[in-house]
Amino acid sequence: MLTLAFESSAKAASVALCDGGTLIAQSTQICGQTHSVTLLPMAQDLLKNAGKTLEDVELFAVAHGPGSFTGIRIGVSTVKGLAWGCDKPAVGVSTLEAMAWNGVAFGEGELLCCVMDARRSQVYNALFTVQNGRPRRLCPDRAISLEELAGELEQLGRTAHLIGDGTEVAEKFLTARGLPVCPAPENLRWQSGYGVAMAALDAEPGTADQVLPVYLRLSQAERERQERMKKE
Amino acid sequence: MLTLAFESSAKAASVALCDGGTLIAQSTQICGQTHSVTLLPMAQDLLKNAGKTLEDVELFAVAHGPGSFTGIRIGVSTVKGLAWGCDKPAVGVSTLEAMAWNGVAFGEGELLCCVMDARRSQVYNALFTVQNGRPRRLCPDRAISLEELAGELEQLGRTAHLIGDGTEVAEKFLTARGLPVCPAPENLRWQSGYGVAMAALDAEPGTADQVLPVYLRLSQAERERQERMKKE
Repeated sequence: MLTLAFESSAKAASVALCDGGTLIAQSTQICGQTHSVTLLPMAQDLLKNAGKTLEDVELFAVAHGPGSFTGIRIGVSTVKGLAWGCDKPAVGVSTLEAMAWNGVAFGEGELLCCVMDARRSQVYNALFTVQNGRPRRLCPDRAISLEELAGELEQLGRTAHLIGDGTEVAEKFLTARGLPVCPAPENLRWQSGYGVAMAALDAEPGTADQVLPVYLRLSQAERERQERMKKE
Repeated sequence: MLTLAFESSAKAASVALCDGGTLIAQSTQICGQTHSVTLLPMAQDLLKNAGKTLEDVELFAVAHGPGSFTGIRIGVSTVKGLAWGCDKPAVGVSTLEAMAWNGVAFGEGELLCCVMDARRSQVYNALFTVQNGRPRRLCPDRAISLEELAGELEQLGRTAHLIGDGTEVAEKFLTARGLPVCPAPENLRWQSGYGVAMAALDAEPGTADQVLPVYLRLSQAERERQERMKKE
């Protein structure tokens, strides 16, 4: 199953082409360029350099969140458009679960702590462990404070491998609390299209209209509107 | 130091843009497309999507071997041309050392066994361990038989993380000999431009003419010529 997978939920933009679990090509940029400008050209260039076309793709996959609201919308819209236009199946996967695939390298039984900076003193987080060379989920995706995360890790009492763009902020906070953490090396820290493709192998492919953003929290506009309505 | 790093020594072609040890962008394809056709367009597309130009690049780096003779020549020629044309420094690094950077994720003290299929019943190999988050070399690059490699690993008596396109053939051979090995997961198995950029941080930059292929063995043409001359 030739999968074209998109990741644009945070600072990194990444596109990967995989045949099942085999990586065929991947392009990633982590330079803060606007994903709305670079994501589709990246996909186009990747297919061209891999000698493939959109017609060869059998499944479009995307990290549907949590993450940057704008970033998620860019990725989800791109995949909706491609799947609809090419009349091919599409699937959305958890951004955090896709990231956990980076952590498989840390070895069997290791604790993976996927963290994304969610602003407002929170992180988007989920915990995983590595089992049979795959991530096994230990809790649902959530937006929590670093304080709460520290409490949970304290109870688990094990070294946590930090993965994601929230690694730096989490490392600082958790280390100050005396918790053993291990930040992922640079080449595994960032969201990757490969992770999305791997997570998509376990998901049920659907149609373009079934792929929806998963924000976990209300958007700023929605939050302010609800607050305004409460006051009125 | 903005480094544009090239890897084309085997099946994978990879280009990475790094600022010191920070990954800015990377493109990789492992689909058997001819590197002579794809490597430069990949670099061009990568720079474009990262919003950079050749003028921004401060160092050109390349995996100078060992590896496929043709692949190495493509990478080395590309970097020579770019460095000469842009009047910028260039550096060549060991393909195996660059690959070892993939293995840093396996953790402190782990044994990294970088293997490339060298045909003629040999592998290109070097052993490394992880020390302070970096690969530390345990032996020079060499072309050896899997039999010899098995003997060495037996003496070391530790689990070897296999990295590189020789992983599959080495895993089969070493496992049959009862040796404990752990093949790198798909996203770390292949040569990467990122690894080249990291290895280049330790190397002394020179000029375009100083970058030379390191084949380790004689080419097939040279070997046959010498055999012919011996007979005559």
